[in-house]
Amino acid sequence: MKKTTVSAVHPLDQALTLTPVANTAHEHGREAARHWQGQTHHDYMNMVGPFGGLIAAQAMNAVLQHPELLGEPISFTANFAAALQEGSFRAEARPVRTNRSTQHWQITLSQTNSEGVDSVVLTATAVTAKRRQTWSAVDAVMPDVPPPATVARATQPKPVAWVRRYDMRPCAGEVPTEWNGTEADSLTQLWMRDDPPRPLDFCSLTALADVFYPRVWRRRAFMTPVGTVSMTVYFHASAAELAATGTDYLLGQARAQSFFNGFFDQSAELWNESGHLLATTHQIVYFKE
Amino acid sequence: MKKTTVSAVHPLDQALTLTPVANTAHEHGREAARHWQGQTHHDYMNMVGPFGGLIAAQAMNAVLQHPELLGEPISFTANFAAALQEGSFRAEARPVRTNRSTQHWQITLSQTNSEGVDSVVLTATAVTAKRRQTWSAVDAVMPDVPPPATVARATQPKPVAWVRRYDMRPCAGEVPTEWNGTEADSLTQLWMRDDPPRPLDFCSLTALADVFYPRVWRRRAFMTPVGTVSMTVYFHASAAELAATGTDYLLGQARAQSFFNGFFDQSAELWNESGHLLATTHQIVYFKE
Repeated sequence: MKKTTVSAVHPLDQALTLTPVANTAHEHGREAARHWQGQTHHDYMNMVGPFGGLIAAQAMNAVLQHPELLGEPISFTANFAAALQEGSFRAEARPVRTNRSTQHWQITLSQTNSEGVDSVVLTATAVTAKRRQTWSAVDAVMPDVPPPATVARATQPKPVAWVRRYDMRPCAGEVPTEWNGTEADSLTQLWMRDDPPRPLDFCSLTALADVFYPRVWRRRAFMTPVGTVSMTVYFHASAAELAATGTDYLLGQARAQSFFNGFFDQSAELWNESGHLLATTHQIVYFKE
Repeated sequence: MKKTTVSAVHPLDQALTLTPVANTAHEHGREAARHWQGQTHHDYMNMVGPFGGLIAAQAMNAVLQHPELLGEPISFTANFAAALQEGSFRAEARPVRTNRSTQHWQITLSQTNSEGVDSVVLTATAVTAKRRQTWSAVDAVMPDVPPPATVARATQPKPVAWVRRYDMRPCAGEVPTEWNGTEADSLTQLWMRDDPPRPLDFCSLTALADVFYPRVWRRRAFMTPVGTVSMTVYFHASAAELAATGTDYLLGQARAQSFFNGFFDQSAELWNESGHLLATTHQIVYFKE
């Protein structure tokens, strides 16, 4: 009997799919802009709208799919302007300046509401560049934690959909089990990778930069409504280092520096198992009280 | 004999001046965008083009001058697409999404070259918001350094113009005096304020976030050409805290986490003398070799 090969498309690749859309009249004079239609994906939904890391990855993918792309991502900033409604959205990526070795991008995601009004749901900028080999060094210190195989996978009592798409193995600073308002630190360290495993690329790394649960929950053992407002990823690896990482786990470490009148920051690092610091990432997050 | 009162406008305020420009035809349909003309300023020039912190502050000022502004800056990201040529530039600020308490901005600076071609020299995004009083806490630890009055002002052998507009008093990690390639850490701590002193506001704080000399110079005691590619500022203070800071010194601390094939990152904190963490800021910087 012949074996049946199931060629399943990874849920992240399903979610990242962008379909080209022809330019419309009102973008006349902005020829370099390209438009795509994307879709929210049931596997990556959060409590309100999709997982922000996925939305960021979708915006990044619009840059990577652009036929005029120069080089690879160096920096990426996404600003979350509104919760995406389930369904389709429009992605625009535009190279606004192309130099000899660097390229600057503006990206927007937008949706048409039930009244037919088009609204921006995300703005982003990116810089891509051709890297050259130079002197290199990592000053950040990789935390000393047990290997991923020896760390138990996190279980959450009422997981939202997207959490199931990540194999997360906390080494320190888990989600509080008692929401008793005990103030502590804001540090979390965990191993993480896509579930099912998927070779690392710039889109999945962008999404992984947003897997940390809100620092204010950890810091206070208090669950207040939150929402990431702006997120930046700096890439310290090229496609070769991501390919070499493959489906290995990444070690993520995140902590806050300031919580002030409704907004806190988060700084995080993502290493691969061999100790290469692949990305540093920062965000500022709204919290209600 | 009557005393003559000299009412001098601070050089930073001169440099930040933006003159409104009427919208042109091709922005039809983007009514909320406002345009200004700005000028480079001789006091804030760097080796190639103006001091990046000033350019960022000029872009921030376009948001702050916009008649539809909601709230105060929460986050700001500027991407430096090309060196500004001496002379005038065009600033555009557009609120692309206004929610109940937050507002999302796209900003571009552009210049017309000698062939009459208009090019983007900077892209930026900002989020402004009305803050509400909430639980607040600072987790970052303010470095223990001597008070600014007891620290000597830095003297640089061949200062570029903008350096003279800042009173910088290094506590640790000064600019290397011997460029001998001795590898060390990338940490710098310094007191800083405008010179002449000027009450702190969101524009001057944005500029101050960029005063640190390149981390790669410190790390290696080796002077390689550099240029900031992207810079993000998260504000952890409202106008009241900035006003209360007045003309006091800020304590800045900056260090790098990764130097990899042509780009390094920098993370920095800016405290006021009372120990309020006013801003955290991050950037990614090109280096040649």
